[in-house]
Amino acid sequence: MSYAYLGPAGTFTESALLQVPGAADAQRIPASSVNVALSMVREGSVEAAMVPIENSVEGGVSATLDAIAQGEALQIVAEILVPISFVLAVRPGIDSLEQIKRISTHGHAWAQCRLWAEANIPQAAFTPASSTAAGALALEEAEPPHDAAICSPLVAQERGLKVLARGVEDNQGAVTRFILVTRPGKIPAPTKVDKSTLILPLPEDRPGALMEILEQFTARGVNLSRIESRPTGQGLGQYFFSVDFEGHVADERVAAALSGLHRLSPELRFLGSYPAAEGVEPFVDAHNSDAAFSEARDWVKSLRERL
Amino acid sequence: MSYAYLGPAGTFTESALLQVPGAADAQRIPASSVNVALSMVREGSVEAAMVPIENSVEGGVSATLDAIAQGEALQIVAEILVPISFVLAVRPGIDSLEQIKRISTHGHAWAQCRLWAEANIPQAAFTPASSTAAGALALEEAEPPHDAAICSPLVAQERGLKVLARGVEDNQGAVTRFILVTRPGKIPAPTKVDKSTLILPLPEDRPGALMEILEQFTARGVNLSRIESRPTGQGLGQYFFSVDFEGHVADERVAAALSGLHRLSPELRFLGSYPAAEGVEPFVDAHNSDAAFSEARDWVKSLRERL
Amino acid sequence: MSYAYLGPAGTFTESALLQVPGAADAQRIPASSVNVALSMVREGSVEAAMVPIENSVEGGVSATLDAIAQGEALQIVAEILVPISFVLAVRPGIDSLEQIKRISTHGHAWAQCRLWAEANIPQAAFTPASSTAAGALALEEAEPPHDAAICSPLVAQERGLKVLARGVEDNQGAVTRFILVTRPGKIPAPTKVDKSTLILPLPEDRPGALMEILEQFTARGVNLSRIESRPTGQGLGQYFFSVDFEGHVADERVAAALSGLHRLSPELRFLGSYPAAEGVEPFVDAHNSDAAFSEARDWVKSLRERL
Amino acid sequence: MSYAYLGPAGTFTESALLQVPGAADAQRIPASSVNVALSMVREGSVEAAMVPIENSVEGGVSATLDAIAQGEALQIVAEILVPISFVLAVRPGIDSLEQIKRISTHGHAWAQCRLWAEANIPQAAFTPASSTAAGALALEEAEPPHDAAICSPLVAQERGLKVLARGVEDNQGAVTRFILVTRPGKIPAPTKVDKSTLILPLPEDRPGALMEILEQFTARGVNLSRIESRPTGQGLGQYFFSVDFEGHVADERVAAALSGLHRLSPELRFLGSYPAAEGVEPFVDAHNSDAAFSEARDWVKSLRERL
Repeated sequence: MSYAYLGPAGTFTESALLQVPGAADAQRIPASSVNVALSMVREGSVEAAMVPIENSVEGGVSATLDAIAQGEALQIVAEILVPISFVLAVRPGIDSLEQIKRISTHGHAWAQCRLWAEANIPQAAFTPASSTAAGALALEEAEPPHDAAICSPLVAQERGLKVLARGVEDNQGAVTRFILVTRPGKIPAPTKVDKSTLILPLPEDRPGALMEILEQFTARGVNLSRIESRPTGQGLGQYFFSVDFEGHVADERVAAALSGLHRLSPELRFLGSYPAAEGVEPFVDAHNSDAAFSEARDWVKSLRERL
Repeated sequence: MSYAYLGPAGTFTESALLQVPGAADAQRIPASSVNVALSMVREGSVEAAMVPIENSVEGGVSATLDAIAQGEALQIVAEILVPISFVLAVRPGIDSLEQIKRISTHGHAWAQCRLWAEANIPQAAFTPASSTAAGALALEEAEPPHDAAICSPLVAQERGLKVLARGVEDNQGAVTRFILVTRPGKIPAPTKVDKSTLILPLPEDRPGALMEILEQFTARGVNLSRIESRPTGQGLGQYFFSVDFEGHVADERVAAALSGLHRLSPELRFLGSYPAAEGVEPFVDAHNSDAAFSEARDWVKSLRERL
Repeated sequence: MSYAYLGPAGTFTESALLQVPGAADAQRIPASSVNVALSMVREGSVEAAMVPIENSVEGGVSATLDAIAQGEALQIVAEILVPISFVLAVRPGIDSLEQIKRISTHGHAWAQCRLWAEANIPQAAFTPASSTAAGALALEEAEPPHDAAICSPLVAQERGLKVLARGVEDNQGAVTRFILVTRPGKIPAPTKVDKSTLILPLPEDRPGALMEILEQFTARGVNLSRIESRPTGQGLGQYFFSVDFEGHVADERVAAALSGLHRLSPELRFLGSYPAAEGVEPFVDAHNSDAAFSEARDWVKSLRERL
Repeated sequence: MSYAYLGPAGTFTESALLQVPGAADAQRIPASSVNVALSMVREGSVEAAMVPIENSVEGGVSATLDAIAQGEALQIVAEILVPISFVLAVRPGIDSLEQIKRISTHGHAWAQCRLWAEANIPQAAFTPASSTAAGALALEEAEPPHDAAICSPLVAQERGLKVLARGVEDNQGAVTRFILVTRPGKIPAPTKVDKSTLILPLPEDRPGALMEILEQFTARGVNLSRIESRPTGQGLGQYFFSVDFEGHVADERVAAALSGLHRLSPELRFLGSYPAAEGVEPFVDAHNSDAAFSEARDWVKSLRERL
């Protein structure tokens, strides 16, 4: 097996990939962007790619949501949660926070540590880096362009960087969700605690369209765990929705909801059913059970045999 | 072919039956009640029965709704509309409205002519008859128990009764709807302007149950043309719904609605799809077309083949 | 105080009236029909009328529902539940069931005892009476027109009639609900376990109209306890709904639902809020509490003060 | 009047601000971030701030959505649409696309021109700039850190930069929406074609919560023109919604929807009603008209006066 991931090495995305069984001994190829990582999957140069999808600090949500919503079809086969914590690494010669004049990191990481920075290194000027790892690696240059970098504990440890502070994130307990993406193929078997992901273009710009969409879920007792709107890029006010819901396409209630959604939004994309990284087996009303769907189908079939 | 109908002969129900092709030359058996007529169908002593179902004057709605909702399964194969108009027939010796001291008719007919009666024969005492025809036939007895009867033009004409007034109904333009009922069997082929009938026990006594039921129709663009509640006889506040809707079980959107309804109310009864006596071909949104349902089903099937 | 009630004396309706505090010593006037009883209220010849509204055996649901839905406005100020049980009273000279050749009672009572009659007096011919009490009183005539009558225990006891069987109703435990009706006036104060009644003409013959109506209740957490459709008399397929729901017009959530209903169906009739004869205090979500409505109103008011 | 805007000078945000009557002659203060611009309003150092809110290239949607959703209350008083088109400016000495080795611009602008860049300057390495204007101004330095910058036509013109290509954006016809923000105060008077903006925290993590929210709009015929989800920052799966809808708080249907929303989501924020930059007067059903609301309120009031 070979994997791409949003690089460079030492980011939280690589931490996520290392949680996949067998990935530690497999080929792991850092990609310069989510798009590049997914292109490698699409072209077949790797079997799978690990990319962040929710609350990411390394390029994040929007890039991934958009990249899997468009272009050649892809499939999500697993999700991984990684707790996010940052360290403050410094170049040689810096021994105290007061000495830091210039600091660099990825813009998303900077957003997550800004309050800490304002309180502890108010004198430091910020310059954006293309990733947290890139900002950290620059500290090793002969003439480092900045004095400090905010980065993952992993990269600081791997490169032996000097760390002046740990846990500098403003919201402790933050977690990023990553997904493992392949070309469309075999869907992972249901485990009772599964999740599925859809891309749903809003059928028309009319009131109630979103409600009709949501009704397809609620009418079958299917719970949404995430719903996000994204512009389609076709003009102001044109959106698609990226939706996670509890359950597996093997569940009858999910199949029925998908069928209803296809009628309302025929361009929808099914991105996969896969084990949920957390959560409990969803409660299913008797009238939304597989048996209820199967009995209803048999009953209607028996009526139509009288035609 | 042999037919039962709600008798006696000469009622509006027989008029309805005579509209069925071939019925004029078939065996026509008057029944003393809707229940008796339907029992004859259930037992197989006749092939079909004509009974009133909506706004009837001869025993009417409730009796029929309840009789087809319970007991052995039946099927509606046709509906017939008959305009309702009454005449005032009198016994020999009565020449003016002032002479009428006692009047008889079925209670439902009386209800429909009461304003006319109060204005024109306020002195007349009312006694109920078991049918409009029965009240009329009693005028022929040696000692008629009443002076006048309100009845159908048909029975007055057939028996040569003396008629003092015509069109004595308070609401002109009234129409009664009759249904032709058989044992369950072949469902009439779709004609594009069809109607279907369901008996829907409310699943539970909880707020929103009726809305969930209705949502099954609206989510597929299926229009209701009649909805009536009836007590189940199991206690105050326990109801079933009798529902007519546009469309045929051969339509995909109807099949989908029926399937959803079966899950919510598994004891529902499908009473048939049959040509509508009036109306136009229903407008169907693209996303509720047979094609949309078929494509959605194929799409979900293709996903599940990847399991 | 003076009261009208659906007569004659000795029916279940009088039993209901006798449960009203003070009615036993007040003037009680039997009326020949629900319409007559309500007319006496409308004209002011009595202060109030007791009539059956649900599952009645003495003239019943439809007559009352229609009579209070049309004509001059009326108000429901109380409801009374009466258990329904019938006795078989006979004329002098009848000593056994086998001797009964002719039996009479009100058609609704007959419907409720038919199985018992078919099993126990199959030889008896039925003739309809205008009320259960009328059928019973005829047994006292010099030449009774029938041998037996099905009637209330009250009338049999008051008249000293001979009773051959008790509890002859097919469904034991049946209950009829009666309402006490006045001209519109002061609404009874809330008791925490209240009920309200509405007449709701369906605004248009269009799909979804009923759902929009129901949504006005569910959106405020107002539970329906009864919903019945009735033809308006204006043509097939034209209905109004008679609805009971939990709560009092003094409750904010009820006032909000009424306001929404008025927009959708401006011809609706509010028939009153009154103590429920049974039931528990309804559960009200925090967001449907009086406080939530009051805070929401204040908030919107504060916004509009900035206009 | 004094205005802040998302700087530096020469960005599209300044173009938007210049469309506000009087702004060309007023004090205009560039701010280094959306947060800084809004802080200047909150602190009172300027009267208003112009910031991008939808499809922006200069710091964009998320930053603004989050900044006005949290912290001290603010108000939107106007919206401005600006067509977005980019030019490719180069440092002295660069005469052809082939010579460009390093290019810089804001990450959002880069995202919008990436396809052009891949096709026309595939050899160029990208380095992020803190704004499109900053990347352009660096071309004037003695030793420019890059050879080219993607920026607005305005800044290229103002600084007299050499332009090698125009219209380098991938999606032509792109537009960015900007809002003018003040401290809460007088709400602009209705103009018949108005828009309002809300921040709606989802009340609970339960299925149907979003549907209940949307129902508050649809039940009053209020059309949504934009709905976007944003993480609250409190954990995965915790969202608030940013919503634009047609209509003005002065409209009764809008006031009613706001009142219902306040009950479901008491922490909601009303960000203002203001003239829409485009669009037509919304169609309002009779039952959602100001008159219908007013009549309904009067009717309920008349009922409650009988308490």
